[in-house]
Amino acid sequence: MKNIIVQKFGGTSVGSVERILAVANIIKAAFKNEFPIVVVSAMGKETDRLVVLAKGISVNPEKRELDALLSTGEKVSASLLAMQLNEMGIKAKSFSAAQISMKTTSQYSKAKILDINYQIILDSIESGFVPVITGFQGVTDSGDVTTLGRGGSDTTAVAVSAAIEASRCDIYTDVDGIYTTDPNLVKNAKKLETITMEEMLELSGQGANVLQIRAVEFANKYNVPLRVLSSFRSGSGTHILKEESSMEDAVITGIAYQKDQTKITLHGVVDTPGIASGILSPISDEDIEVDVIVQNVSVSGKTDFTFTVATEDSSAAEAALNNNMQGITYDEIIVDENIVKVSLVGVGMRSHAGIASKAFNALADAGINIQMISTSEIKITLVINQDNLEDAVKVLHDAFELEK
Amino acid sequence: MKNIIVQKFGGTSVGSVERILAVANIIKAAFKNEFPIVVVSAMGKETDRLVVLAKGISVNPEKRELDALLSTGEKVSASLLAMQLNEMGIKAKSFSAAQISMKTTSQYSKAKILDINYQIILDSIESGFVPVITGFQGVTDSGDVTTLGRGGSDTTAVAVSAAIEASRCDIYTDVDGIYTTDPNLVKNAKKLETITMEEMLELSGQGANVLQIRAVEFANKYNVPLRVLSSFRSGSGTHILKEESSMEDAVITGIAYQKDQTKITLHGVVDTPGIASGILSPISDEDIEVDVIVQNVSVSGKTDFTFTVATEDSSAAEAALNNNMQGITYDEIIVDENIVKVSLVGVGMRSHAGIASKAFNALADAGINIQMISTSEIKITLVINQDNLEDAVKVLHDAFELEK
Repeated sequence: MKNIIVQKFGGTSVGSVERILAVANIIKAAFKNEFPIVVVSAMGKETDRLVVLAKGISVNPEKRELDALLSTGEKVSASLLAMQLNEMGIKAKSFSAAQISMKTTSQYSKAKILDINYQIILDSIESGFVPVITGFQGVTDSGDVTTLGRGGSDTTAVAVSAAIEASRCDIYTDVDGIYTTDPNLVKNAKKLETITMEEMLELSGQGANVLQIRAVEFANKYNVPLRVLSSFRSGSGTHILKEESSMEDAVITGIAYQKDQTKITLHGVVDTPGIASGILSPISDEDIEVDVIVQNVSVSGKTDFTFTVATEDSSAAEAALNNNMQGITYDEIIVDENIVKVSLVGVGMRSHAGIASKAFNALADAGINIQMISTSEIKITLVINQDNLEDAVKVLHDAFELEK
Repeated sequence: MKNIIVQKFGGTSVGSVERILAVANIIKAAFKNEFPIVVVSAMGKETDRLVVLAKGISVNPEKRELDALLSTGEKVSASLLAMQLNEMGIKAKSFSAAQISMKTTSQYSKAKILDINYQIILDSIESGFVPVITGFQGVTDSGDVTTLGRGGSDTTAVAVSAAIEASRCDIYTDVDGIYTTDPNLVKNAKKLETITMEEMLELSGQGANVLQIRAVEFANKYNVPLRVLSSFRSGSGTHILKEESSMEDAVITGIAYQKDQTKITLHGVVDTPGIASGILSPISDEDIEVDVIVQNVSVSGKTDFTFTVATEDSSAAEAALNNNMQGITYDEIIVDENIVKVSLVGVGMRSHAGIASKAFNALADAGINIQMISTSEIKITLVINQDNLEDAVKVLHDAFELEK
């Protein structure tokens, strides 16, 4: 019996009839040594096309119907890909989420996977048919169609891998792996052969937009070995492994950055117990995600409280503060959209002291001012002026010799 | 409790976001007095778009996958229409064939409906949601998606009407009813207020392409009152009733015609028992439908055997005769593509003698030669040279005073 692997192909990978042929050839090659289960996204701009139709009907389309509509995109690509495989002499069957009872919660547009009837997938494999499964979607207990949110096909692939105990989950995309930092920013950025899941989690959260963060969490929880690789160029990609796997003990694995962030400061807050929750509750009530949070030491009974939000949420956050904050006295609110977050990530940080100071020194030498600092066990996040982004990433990449 | 009706909207009726709004207004108007169950086809050219994608992959796409692909078309229109109804304040839910367990046989691309789980539809109605059901498709017992063939949405609508015992099934299309004959051919063709199902069956079979014949048969079998009307113009359409309903006893109800027919004659066939089956079996083995069949009286042990097939099947029919006919001796095969079938239809024929001779006289007076004649209880079909089509239909329309 061949090893079972899961192969997931994103929207650009199956964007046309020609691309579907290319993907079928990748599956055919894998089929020689392993038994692939395939998960597909909708073709290229198909989801956008469907959203435009829905927006032609309503600015706020009924959620159940929007999910039913969007779910057709992957059904189209799954049946076309299964058709192509059959055409090439490889027996294949498309399966919608409903057909494999991919059960989810009933939160339309951001449903969470609960359970999969993997017996149907196993039956397909046993009768020699490559299953081609629609990503991004599920069904509720009452049979309503749901979607997992943009990028949810990664989560589908990992969930299928976990249910079937696949030996590997290959995520095919338009980049050929995970880099030490953005190759567009730093010329000598290096492709990583391996990265730990924890590092990948921190990188996903910080905008290394290769894999959906939920998929990585899922893979981490269920011990699914992941690999990210290109469907456009051949190559071995980047393996995303549990830390237990033998890994070179790099101190810093990569540098991520995130633009379109806004820093909001409440200046001169009267320091009383509970000011953090008093300030942040009105914001979380609006479902706005708050990231780096810093509270300065109190001087003569007053303090500054600063945090970052996505720039698209900054007006709503400011309104929430002005209208709904209870029992907080302050001098003024200062909003700064001209910032960027840069993060150093690496499991090696745990066992190496002095990483933070090395980073601070490198930036200081380059004359780059650090506005905020936030650290976790395997990550250091710095908020700087966005004009310094390129210099900062280069300086840090050099300081930690990531090109080696 | 309001009466439950079924409203079916075809592809041109829901061809754009604007058309979907127009259709939603028709449903909203009906909703005041009746409770509508809606059945929809795919938007305009959507099915054609999907076929082009499939043909880009294979000249003969795998059938299971082709049906899975095509079935997405109605899912898109059903969810958009349900979205539009919700937007207008009418609670609505789209249902795919799978969601209402519309069980069919497993003949892909021409599946037949076996059973419907109408409880799901009733539950939707009881909770006040207008069900918007995908036409044209079903699922097999093992959950594979099937399609009913082009025009199959009419059959879906009638099947739902029968299962739910709806008080009426309204088929919305781009014509405003059934006419005595093609209004493009005869200026004073008259829209019929009523027509019997049997007449409709004969008209559908003869190319009055308003309703799919299988849908009419289904309606006939399960006593579903049908109505054909326009989604583009207001009007009461044509009611298609069981004969028991009080009907004006018109002798002839309408005249249908069918182009693209070919007449095949085996000349000088040696007359022995079983020649009809000997000639026609090789043709039916190729799944070619044979229509008007005439065998002349035998002269000195030889006869002529003539029948019609659709022109697209004529080469295959000729090949089947040449290659697979057993024990038939004949002089030659004559193929004539320059013909047309014209049919007079009416339940009144049963009780009125002399209809055939009146028709023959009218054509003779106009100098139109009749090549073949076939009669059934409520229909007379004539094969004539296609150059005579327009004259023949006008002459017959006048002779039976159908404009009145």
